[in-house]
Amino acid sequence: MSAVEISLAELAERFSLEVRGDDRRLINGVATLEHATPDKLSFLANTKYRAALAQTRAGAVVMTADVAASVSTDALLSRNVYADFSKIAACFEVRPIRKAGIHPSAVIDADAHISPLACIGPMVVIGARSRVDAGAIVGAHCVIGDDCVVGAQSELVARVTLVTRVRIGQRVLIHPGAVLGADGFGLAMEGGRWIKVPQLGGVVIGDDCEIGANTTIDRGALGDTVLEEDVRLDNQIQIAHNVHIGAHTAMAGCSAVAGSARIGRYCLIGGGAGVLGHLSICDNVTITSMALVTHSIRAPGEYSSGTPLMDNRAWRRSAVRFKQLGSRTPNSPNSIDAKATPDT
Amino acid sequence: MSAVEISLAELAERFSLEVRGDDRRLINGVATLEHATPDKLSFLANTKYRAALAQTRAGAVVMTADVAASVSTDALLSRNVYADFSKIAACFEVRPIRKAGIHPSAVIDADAHISPLACIGPMVVIGARSRVDAGAIVGAHCVIGDDCVVGAQSELVARVTLVTRVRIGQRVLIHPGAVLGADGFGLAMEGGRWIKVPQLGGVVIGDDCEIGANTTIDRGALGDTVLEEDVRLDNQIQIAHNVHIGAHTAMAGCSAVAGSARIGRYCLIGGGAGVLGHLSICDNVTITSMALVTHSIRAPGEYSSGTPLMDNRAWRRSAVRFKQLGSRTPNSPNSIDAKATPDT
Amino acid sequence: MSAVEISLAELAERFSLEVRGDDRRLINGVATLEHATPDKLSFLANTKYRAALAQTRAGAVVMTADVAASVSTDALLSRNVYADFSKIAACFEVRPIRKAGIHPSAVIDADAHISPLACIGPMVVIGARSRVDAGAIVGAHCVIGDDCVVGAQSELVARVTLVTRVRIGQRVLIHPGAVLGADGFGLAMEGGRWIKVPQLGGVVIGDDCEIGANTTIDRGALGDTVLEEDVRLDNQIQIAHNVHIGAHTAMAGCSAVAGSARIGRYCLIGGGAGVLGHLSICDNVTITSMALVTHSIRAPGEYSSGTPLMDNRAWRRSAVRFKQLGSRTPNSPNSIDAKATPDT
Repeated sequence: MSAVEISLAELAERFSLEVRGDDRRLINGVATLEHATPDKLSFLANTKYRAALAQTRAGAVVMTADVAASVSTDALLSRNVYADFSKIAACFEVRPIRKAGIHPSAVIDADAHISPLACIGPMVVIGARSRVDAGAIVGAHCVIGDDCVVGAQSELVARVTLVTRVRIGQRVLIHPGAVLGADGFGLAMEGGRWIKVPQLGGVVIGDDCEIGANTTIDRGALGDTVLEEDVRLDNQIQIAHNVHIGAHTAMAGCSAVAGSARIGRYCLIGGGAGVLGHLSICDNVTITSMALVTHSIRAPGEYSSGTPLMDNRAWRRSAVRFKQLGSRTPNSPNSIDAKATPDT
Repeated sequence: MSAVEISLAELAERFSLEVRGDDRRLINGVATLEHATPDKLSFLANTKYRAALAQTRAGAVVMTADVAASVSTDALLSRNVYADFSKIAACFEVRPIRKAGIHPSAVIDADAHISPLACIGPMVVIGARSRVDAGAIVGAHCVIGDDCVVGAQSELVARVTLVTRVRIGQRVLIHPGAVLGADGFGLAMEGGRWIKVPQLGGVVIGDDCEIGANTTIDRGALGDTVLEEDVRLDNQIQIAHNVHIGAHTAMAGCSAVAGSARIGRYCLIGGGAGVLGHLSICDNVTITSMALVTHSIRAPGEYSSGTPLMDNRAWRRSAVRFKQLGSRTPNSPNSIDAKATPDT
Repeated sequence: MSAVEISLAELAERFSLEVRGDDRRLINGVATLEHATPDKLSFLANTKYRAALAQTRAGAVVMTADVAASVSTDALLSRNVYADFSKIAACFEVRPIRKAGIHPSAVIDADAHISPLACIGPMVVIGARSRVDAGAIVGAHCVIGDDCVVGAQSELVARVTLVTRVRIGQRVLIHPGAVLGADGFGLAMEGGRWIKVPQLGGVVIGDDCEIGANTTIDRGALGDTVLEEDVRLDNQIQIAHNVHIGAHTAMAGCSAVAGSARIGRYCLIGGGAGVLGHLSICDNVTITSMALVTHSIRAPGEYSSGTPLMDNRAWRRSAVRFKQLGSRTPNSPNSIDAKATPDT
């Protein structure tokens, strides 16, 4: 799909790497060690794949000098293999060309301000007092409500919804199905019925954030829900109202944060993990997959909950014992009423 | 953003509260204790924030008479602070004006019936024999299939999908990305291949329900999936076919209910919690976050599963012991194959 | 809603079943044992509902010969009741008629190829070099990017997004809100900031797959994310980049698979279950609901993690003990800092 050809020498110069082998070799794409052909560049970042390196047909491989010392493959020597490979791979990415301008099918409020250097795709709807800055791309079927901002060079890939009062920084990337700025879940009980708590705040997304497909970020009740710069959210994440996420934190798919929780900088939140509301997590905390954070965390480190995966029969015996742990007279395991078969 | 100004005296009269202090004071909005200025009203519902009350610059604060006895701030005295504050806050909410009528870009089946008092937004598609009643708002990009009803005063904010046979009551609010009435997940195995079980039922949503962003509610296989009145669902909730949820039950984000389960009235289902299929949960049950309901619950109360959050090294030791709980000869903790690091 | 009437004799012949009772009886629909009237067909697949069989008013019931021996109801005798009932029910399903052709509101790239026998609904957007084959239905509001294929007889119900390089086989059914082919979540850290790893692969979906509402399937980083034939995914499932799922595997709602994991054939993944990245699961494995797969599985069978549902007070005592399991000197249960109340 790409007609780009770049020599190892040029790649080395562009990314400050050292070539080992034939630096005139031409590369026209990237591939895994297993599937690479002699015109492709590959990489070895995880020593687990070292056996594949011995057998690869790749024209060259990005690797550390240490690894390179033990093989004869042509190489680009790097101290941060995965990062350097990522930057090189981007040279071979084919991205659709988006011309500035507004597609004739878009419905733009008369009070919206669209930069002449922005690209507004088919069927887009933009509300009053919203602004799209230079170089921004608002892809097909995005719906932007009132009082929103899409910063310069940001891209809403397609079918993204900004409900109201959502301010997106620069170079932000948002994937399809994401909904930002919907009402937070605020309820008060009165006389046996729920009363809706108005959600008067907004959402603020810092520069260089990425937000995954079908992720939801509610707007604040009073004040804003905030992602600082360079926060990276995978797909199907739920961020409740008034949550604050520190810069450079990354969250894996299906994780969720309840209302008014505060997460620090450089945290890693595992897939399916949960954070209860009104908690604080300090900087540099890792939460393992599907763990539930039930209290504030004040020391950097790795935190977990749950039990190991087991054969179901053995698990049932351990589960019975778990139920008995807190009672005074534990009995031997017998039956258990907890049945957890997948239900379709 | 709001030019509304209301005196404390008027708020007190409108919501049957008592003023303490200068009842002519004008309020033009609401804010947290921390951020309020003298023209704003705030509230204290959680005694945890009492220190903030001492320092607030708010013009007045909604609080109980008990709390008011110990501070000198101007106050609106309430017995249900959060509910009363919510109702007052709604006075200051700025909502987009939606005029009745059908946007010219909408595609409406000739056999659909749209009230002249309904508002149909841009790009909306409505199918055969579907009905939208007076005062209802169908926002931009909603897709309504055949044989659906949107009751009076209900609002589909934007990009909501009603697939087929979905009947929405009155004053229902549905947020973007929600999908109601998709096929339930019904499969039968025959000769090593799956056969699809037709999903012939519909979805019935009672009056005054709220349904969060990207939540999914499948239609019934035979008979309907039902939410009774005043059920409140947060974002990214999954309700499978033929589930029945009782009135006034609230479910937090990312929770899920499997097929044909029946949940009572006034239940609270925590975030990320799961309910297996074909179970019953009685009225007034609370399920804590990320718990899994594996058997029917017949007594009101609070139910939990899972383990506490721990430092990862300590957790690994406990996890090894958990595996040994059911065996006859427990050994001392050593290694564990369960590795649960976040995976990006 | 259906005017179709079929005699028991005809149903028996069409599906190779045996009639017991009046084979001229006319059936015009299907219903549960509880709600069926004499013109309806019902079924008994789960002996738990045997009491309902005794009281049903159904005109006839699909059941095994064994069950039929003990009741006098008219019956269609089957060896695979649920599968046969499903096939009969499909006879009574009313599906909207979709005429071939392209809705005038659709925006189709000049370089796309749409079969004259395909149906393209309102507001659909299709990108360059994409292809829609004969008999395929692309419902309202679907967005198809560049270089995609929708195979013959496949249906994208409505509001489905294929981002780029997504190849759908034949007879695939995809429900609203699903997003296929979004960027996988690939990040490398350099100098304290995230670098995005380009996602250069695609998504391949085999014949006869079904993909639920709001499910997300990311495209591969290098190489493709693959579902083999007859894979069935429920709603709100997350499939990360470069995952490979074997034929005939079914996954229940809200389950998730992290990057590069490989799941075998005929697996059943329970609701809310998680699979960490770079693992392999062999054929014929069942994972129970909300379990977390943290290591590769090499033997068929059923696997679980988690703890049983308990009354919250009893659970707190067991949870305290769990924390102490790994330490040398376990104490008696007292307090616990893990609080897991539902947070709205």
